[in-house]
Amino acid sequence: MLKVNQQLALAVDLGGTKIIAAVVLPDGKIISRNYCLTVADKGPKAVFNRLLSAANKTVTQAKLKTSELTGVGIAAAGALDMERGVITDSPNLPNWHDIPLRDILADGLGITTYLINDASAAALGEHRFGAGKGVDNLIYLTVSTGIGGGIIMGSKLYSGADGCAGELGHMTIEAGGPKCNCGNLGCLEALASGTAVAREAVRRVNGGETSSIVELVAGRLESITAEIVALAARQGDSLACDIVAEAANYLGIGLANLVNIFNPELIVIGGGMSQMGNMLLKPARKVVKERAFKLPARTVRIVRARLGSNAGIIGAAAYVFDQQLERKTKA
Amino acid sequence: MLKVNQQLALAVDLGGTKIIAAVVLPDGKIISRNYCLTVADKGPKAVFNRLLSAANKTVTQAKLKTSELTGVGIAAAGALDMERGVITDSPNLPNWHDIPLRDILADGLGITTYLINDASAAALGEHRFGAGKGVDNLIYLTVSTGIGGGIIMGSKLYSGADGCAGELGHMTIEAGGPKCNCGNLGCLEALASGTAVAREAVRRVNGGETSSIVELVAGRLESITAEIVALAARQGDSLACDIVAEAANYLGIGLANLVNIFNPELIVIGGGMSQMGNMLLKPARKVVKERAFKLPARTVRIVRARLGSNAGIIGAAAYVFDQQLERKTKA
Repeated sequence: MLKVNQQLALAVDLGGTKIIAAVVLPDGKIISRNYCLTVADKGPKAVFNRLLSAANKTVTQAKLKTSELTGVGIAAAGALDMERGVITDSPNLPNWHDIPLRDILADGLGITTYLINDASAAALGEHRFGAGKGVDNLIYLTVSTGIGGGIIMGSKLYSGADGCAGELGHMTIEAGGPKCNCGNLGCLEALASGTAVAREAVRRVNGGETSSIVELVAGRLESITAEIVALAARQGDSLACDIVAEAANYLGIGLANLVNIFNPELIVIGGGMSQMGNMLLKPARKVVKERAFKLPARTVRIVRARLGSNAGIIGAAAYVFDQQLERKTKA
Repeated sequence: MLKVNQQLALAVDLGGTKIIAAVVLPDGKIISRNYCLTVADKGPKAVFNRLLSAANKTVTQAKLKTSELTGVGIAAAGALDMERGVITDSPNLPNWHDIPLRDILADGLGITTYLINDASAAALGEHRFGAGKGVDNLIYLTVSTGIGGGIIMGSKLYSGADGCAGELGHMTIEAGGPKCNCGNLGCLEALASGTAVAREAVRRVNGGETSSIVELVAGRLESITAEIVALAARQGDSLACDIVAEAANYLGIGLANLVNIFNPELIVIGGGMSQMGNMLLKPARKVVKERAFKLPARTVRIVRARLGSNAGIIGAAAYVFDQQLERKTKA
């Protein structure tokens, strides 16, 4: 039973594949949740409609009206201008350029709306209710198709001048390295993401190396994913083990950079690749010890995320409550 | 004439070559200043004595007693444990390991003492009274013999869990790059510092390339410094121009990383290498535009520091006043 005057946030996670909408309480509890496919190839308008319908359905499901909500938080992937509530570019949403998503949803739903980067939202979620509970300074890294990040400092999300801080996957760690989706060379994302792992497997198999990976995809190399490579590695396939070790080494270099820059108490690793667990994290932690300064390397704990695919919506809701509190404090 | 109840801080900058001590007002004004050589090779004890005597002399010179001071801020290079006030390691002070400098000076002077990394102090100085006045979020980078950094967020110094955040010179930007003083490979410092520039010049001259650099040092290659290389570059020497361009490219890569990570309003570049001015900064800015995300690359301004060699003492004093204010606010 909801309390009278209970604060409630509507959180929406807009991904390249699916949309999740949920009504969330200030303690991180989800009281209603819905999801649908994004179908990004039908263009922005179709996605707006799906977002609005998922949002409305979730609110109705919770037996609420939108007017009873504190606000809406939308977590979205891509380069955002948080101040203006605009998605400037998104690798997962082709043809989305300078889309004022915040205002579109605010108009459609009639309540205060915030736009936040999905990795920043997940960082906030993990900080409040997941692996980072009670920690003042933490770095969140999601290692998935791409690599995103979020920075929590003094228990608050640090979002920078335009709200697009935390692009930790786009640190150059190999100046002449492979081209990244963002246009730069040798980004962490281009070397340690799921996409990088799959691409490297295809390249080496095409180069003539033998591997059980080929069998696992029945010869269809286009079906190779990081999950397949991880599976083969777990079965002892030496090429797969090699590729995972290489990704772990690069991940470790990226983490060592973050340790030297932020001297954080905690680094939380989420995203699909984190499900590899210690196969990925153990060698990465070793690289941190070897490469980073002694004191911060000793201090930092590097752990897996806890909230899974709910991190984004829980964090987006936390952001709404934070903003509300800040407005009250200022008023 | 000093006002009654005027707050006053004693600031000490301990470098590998020289010690600067100054009495500083809350508005950044220096009312008395002294300096002496560090003579680090005589061992820690000799340095403590010089520090204390420089400090006492400066206070006397200002017609003050140490009891009239708000506190002492010591800015020092190297890996510090700020919480414990300990210099754990210092490249400029050989044989300094786990030296509890804060407590040694606090005992010697009889007042509250803080230990702060010299680049962090300079960041604070530039933020309060130099190139970063009025800016909320800025990154300070000192490009000198080594490369150090300081992070200002929400107008405060961000110092991390142990107080050793901001080691921006020790981001790996070339995973298999040259060995850095810190033990890591391919750090920004190993590729874009004054030491890297001089080392590269020696390597290429030894490799048989002709250059006016050799003439400028009268054949004594061990005398090659970044200043000499810059001078030769300004005179049009093609090898020198090449080496400066390479350092600028690496500096640009490091800056692009900082832009993607922090989305800062401003990056302030200090240290000896910054005196190269646009010869270094113009190509570095170009690399930032090419490599970093569009929005934060458009937002950030990359400028030269303004306080010169006083940045450290002015910042160390600002740190003392900040801490004092925080203690009062908490009390």
